[in-house]
Amino acid sequence: MGGDFGPSVTIPAVKKALKAYPNVAFQLFGDEATINSYLKLHRFNKHDRIRVFASSDDVTMDDNPIIALKNKKNSSMRLALEAVRDGQAHACVSAGNTGALMAISRFVLKMLPGIDRPAIISAIPTLINEHVFLLDLGANVSCDERRLTQFAIMGNELVKCLDDNPSPKVALLNVGEEENKGSEKLQRAAEMINSLESIDYAGFVEGNQIFSGEYQVIVTDGFTGNNVLKASEGLTRYLSHKIKAAFERNWWTRFTGLLAKPVIRTFKHEVNPEKYNGACLVGLRGIVIKSHGAANVFATFCAIEEAIVQSKQKLPHKIREKLEQAAATLDH
Amino acid sequence: MGGDFGPSVTIPAVKKALKAYPNVAFQLFGDEATINSYLKLHRFNKHDRIRVFASSDDVTMDDNPIIALKNKKNSSMRLALEAVRDGQAHACVSAGNTGALMAISRFVLKMLPGIDRPAIISAIPTLINEHVFLLDLGANVSCDERRLTQFAIMGNELVKCLDDNPSPKVALLNVGEEENKGSEKLQRAAEMINSLESIDYAGFVEGNQIFSGEYQVIVTDGFTGNNVLKASEGLTRYLSHKIKAAFERNWWTRFTGLLAKPVIRTFKHEVNPEKYNGACLVGLRGIVIKSHGAANVFATFCAIEEAIVQSKQKLPHKIREKLEQAAATLDH
Repeated sequence: MGGDFGPSVTIPAVKKALKAYPNVAFQLFGDEATINSYLKLHRFNKHDRIRVFASSDDVTMDDNPIIALKNKKNSSMRLALEAVRDGQAHACVSAGNTGALMAISRFVLKMLPGIDRPAIISAIPTLINEHVFLLDLGANVSCDERRLTQFAIMGNELVKCLDDNPSPKVALLNVGEEENKGSEKLQRAAEMINSLESIDYAGFVEGNQIFSGEYQVIVTDGFTGNNVLKASEGLTRYLSHKIKAAFERNWWTRFTGLLAKPVIRTFKHEVNPEKYNGACLVGLRGIVIKSHGAANVFATFCAIEEAIVQSKQKLPHKIREKLEQAAATLDH
Repeated sequence: MGGDFGPSVTIPAVKKALKAYPNVAFQLFGDEATINSYLKLHRFNKHDRIRVFASSDDVTMDDNPIIALKNKKNSSMRLALEAVRDGQAHACVSAGNTGALMAISRFVLKMLPGIDRPAIISAIPTLINEHVFLLDLGANVSCDERRLTQFAIMGNELVKCLDDNPSPKVALLNVGEEENKGSEKLQRAAEMINSLESIDYAGFVEGNQIFSGEYQVIVTDGFTGNNVLKASEGLTRYLSHKIKAAFERNWWTRFTGLLAKPVIRTFKHEVNPEKYNGACLVGLRGIVIKSHGAANVFATFCAIEEAIVQSKQKLPHKIREKLEQAAATLDH
């Protein structure tokens, strides 16, 4: 049971999920005594939909993924993934070390046929529609045209399942909208994605269009995706700081700030990044949801919800079907 | 005289600059009749610090850079750059087609020794300090370690000159701060930059640290830089829209919105992207400032100011010296 706060956040989030989803059961992996003490604290230590499993190793945030994979065979992360592999659980939610989660997932669950490595995909809020799914967010630093095409297929199926949208618009991130812009690799990826019948390919888009809401899936390499996502976090923090400072300028602005508080609260609720917690590791033969290390109770609950929805939709199964159909294009 | 608005924006901006800088003279290139009519409109058609030069070709925003370079030898862009080459002007400011400006600048002005292509660099507001310089913003889609090192040298000298900072902190954008993160190319670039005595290399940074203000120069490839910059524009637009919508919810929120107007104005002024208009094409044997196509009068004035400051500092000359000192590392 990882993340920055461990069971102190996970247990209340699980409690919330048990109430909201009467058919869902939990297996909790980690230090047994600590988990039990938190269960007791929250007064549901004898819940019939909770089972606690003791782990002895501990994957830390600084652990090298390969070392974690080789030496920490009894970590909560590893045991939870093995439960998914063995059909004991439908999905694994973890707030632990992303690199280790990737490496161990890949080893324990294996990849879908034709996929080399998992991609990280997550929803991001937009102007018109509710959200867009952006991938990859950092699992694959450099990507050739085949991998970008795999991302398009996986993103497309994910949106179809989760948003009940039969024909999502899928776009490729580039430095210009014109067909001749960007690297040759990107142009080849555009051709490959465009040739797939199952995808409504919308062409190249630029960075400012990520938040426009015109597209439902935007595909890019993990280096760019990761930096765009993290820069957005940094910019949001910068702008929040600036607006706060503007309201704290003098007694009058502080007064208007008090009056405007409900508005600021509405605004914060609408753009709350916690709603979007729960990135998915796609391409695996099982469902793995990565919760933010610093997630609070609400954000952790959102990550659990994501796992429940994906389990109901049997997402890996559906992605697998589409990959098989696209095999000819991908092998080309 | 390009950009979305042509002389209707440029002429008032020039008027403002003539007042603010009594020692600066302007050469205006474009359609003579149109320029003169705007000069007349703004009542300074007989100014002794303005000369108008007629151009006959027109580089449009959609023009292919190579076509513009080969076929439009009498465009305002080309003539202005030739004036810089021939020592008739200290700097060229353009709001025209970026690709064409890059290609024509490179052909007319030539690159500094050891530099293959210009990089686009611009200041971005940050939390602690006033700004950070990010490069490349889209001139070089893919960059090897040599090119990233050239960016570090150019960014470092630019900040030293413009911000009067003798030892700027220079960082490399990556998907993690640890030395083993990212591609091998990035790790080699880190080594090369770290070996240069003239640079205070601060290591790898992640996207969220762009806006933190702890660094003065952040180096990345043009694909990532362009997407981070444009995504930031898109996110700012999204957040502005959401805050406006929150204030327009009902009569009470509209009322508090009226009271909070001065605060919102302060906030908007502080984060005004127009202040940061005027990206520089570094690596050339002359000063070329790219103004945003949609720049207004104030933003265009800021781009002109940027050109004036860089001219006073003889920026290309200083960058050239540092490149010569670093030649051994770059040739390695």
